[in-house]
Amino acid sequence: MRPLALTPGDPGGVGPEVTVKALIARRDAAVVVVGDWPAVSAEAVRHGLPVTRVQAWPAALGEAVPVLDPGDEVEPVEVAAIRVAVAACLDGSARGLVTGPIHKARLAARGFPHPGHTDFLGVLCRVSDPVMAFAGGKLMVALVTVHLPLRAVPDAVTTERVLHTIRTADEALREQVGLVRPRLVVCGLNPHAGDQGLLGTEDRDVIAPAVAAAREEGVEAVGPVSAEAAFLAAAGGQADLVVAMYHDQGLVPLKLVDFGRSVNWTLGLPIVRTSVDHGTADDIAGQGRADPGSMLAALAWAERLTDRTARPAGG
Amino acid sequence: MRPLALTPGDPGGVGPEVTVKALIARRDAAVVVVGDWPAVSAEAVRHGLPVTRVQAWPAALGEAVPVLDPGDEVEPVEVAAIRVAVAACLDGSARGLVTGPIHKARLAARGFPHPGHTDFLGVLCRVSDPVMAFAGGKLMVALVTVHLPLRAVPDAVTTERVLHTIRTADEALREQVGLVRPRLVVCGLNPHAGDQGLLGTEDRDVIAPAVAAAREEGVEAVGPVSAEAAFLAAAGGQADLVVAMYHDQGLVPLKLVDFGRSVNWTLGLPIVRTSVDHGTADDIAGQGRADPGSMLAALAWAERLTDRTARPAGG
Repeated sequence: MRPLALTPGDPGGVGPEVTVKALIARRDAAVVVVGDWPAVSAEAVRHGLPVTRVQAWPAALGEAVPVLDPGDEVEPVEVAAIRVAVAACLDGSARGLVTGPIHKARLAARGFPHPGHTDFLGVLCRVSDPVMAFAGGKLMVALVTVHLPLRAVPDAVTTERVLHTIRTADEALREQVGLVRPRLVVCGLNPHAGDQGLLGTEDRDVIAPAVAAAREEGVEAVGPVSAEAAFLAAAGGQADLVVAMYHDQGLVPLKLVDFGRSVNWTLGLPIVRTSVDHGTADDIAGQGRADPGSMLAALAWAERLTDRTARPAGG
Repeated sequence: MRPLALTPGDPGGVGPEVTVKALIARRDAAVVVVGDWPAVSAEAVRHGLPVTRVQAWPAALGEAVPVLDPGDEVEPVEVAAIRVAVAACLDGSARGLVTGPIHKARLAARGFPHPGHTDFLGVLCRVSDPVMAFAGGKLMVALVTVHLPLRAVPDAVTTERVLHTIRTADEALREQVGLVRPRLVVCGLNPHAGDQGLLGTEDRDVIAPAVAAAREEGVEAVGPVSAEAAFLAAAGGQADLVVAMYHDQGLVPLKLVDFGRSVNWTLGLPIVRTSVDHGTADDIAGQGRADPGSMLAALAWAERLTDRTARPAGG
């Protein structure tokens, strides 16, 4: 079976530890670790996982892996690992990507120009506009905007971007999850979805036309509705996925309900990609007490999304 | 025992119905209804509640109630009712206020200049800056800003306003709830509380100084932290109340966890005030199927908050 490529992320955070703990808990999983060998093998020795079980970059991926350009060698190992793992997914030697946490501020200080994994993956896959989503627990959420200061959100929520998010989520739910007719509920930007214009006009003027256009294309989307109503509908089973306009609108309710089960899931890429939903947790790194629950959930969700493509292409 | 004053709210919404249903379920409660007599008595007849159990404005409140100025007579009955009920609380003939839903757009169209109940109550009580909070279920949440378009939120979140909200919540938790040393957790404005400045500076420059000032005054407040972390802390019992910066940040997670149990609770007034957390639900008004759960919760929370002041002043 073609393996999933797993990047442990920042070698100084809890990524290598939760990676090794997940491999111990899931000895059956077909996984190749692509990342910092010293960090991962040290964790493997520490937790009693035979080092031979940890296949590491780049040898494990064999000749399908492109050799890094010498000019890239100074980039952080966790960035190089993502680059290699994505290449393996694109050429078919890996069937999907599972990522551990990177540290955005630390990478930014080292010149990494992307605000996070998702944007970088878009560049690597030559997709201009991937969509960040979350799933694996009770709720599924897709975000129209992600890593923006709140002040920048209203102008970033455009009809085009909302429509793109709806379309991309609908497609992923059909193609990766296997839903025949996904039901999407779309949040308003403003409190009470603008309360008939009293609390802002973007809901009526920007979001409603996107929902209408999606419906014309045959997507079963409703909204904009107040974000409270949207999440209650999803929690109650009346919708499959919530389209939220910005980070906290979507992720605060999601994490409250699904913490530890929820998985970061990138939509709109030509590859399947899931990720842990926690950060590097530097404060507990190296102490042996990091919880691998989210890594296990990310692995399980990636396995589920790639069930149908697990065999080699043409096999 | 001095009664609670209950205003059913908009006579065309579900307020009269949930009021009557709550009175039937809680025959023991000391309540005086202050509102539209035709709407409430019609619901009473419909649901088999003896009309004598429904004491209505203004006779029931007796001479303690000021006669409305003739110039006020054209105002909507639900607005006049709030005015009368607040006067009864302020002069001690009622021990607290429980409110049903008003319809903001309808009132705005009729010239009502306030964005909602809370601001109007501030004017009636001569308090410049009441704080909207929610409680009654698993979580307690206080909001720094409430009914604003999202676009207006960042500039409305000032150090002074955050500090005022923290102080007011701390005081209410001590004086009304009876906590000896309330523990408050304060959300950031931006995703990840600004992620060390990468995603906005307000968390560091505006909110952090307010938390520091509150701590200097002896308030046990922590933050700013990411809103996800704040709600997980509160849900896990590590904090008593979450201070959220804006409507959806606070209310989406709250309603997801506490829908039907949660109560709107106004802090910083000289009177106790609770309210249902739903709207007028025009689509089901008059059909007899409105759920009185939130009205019962609002009544119960007001009773709990006024336990110690239930007897007449000086009694």
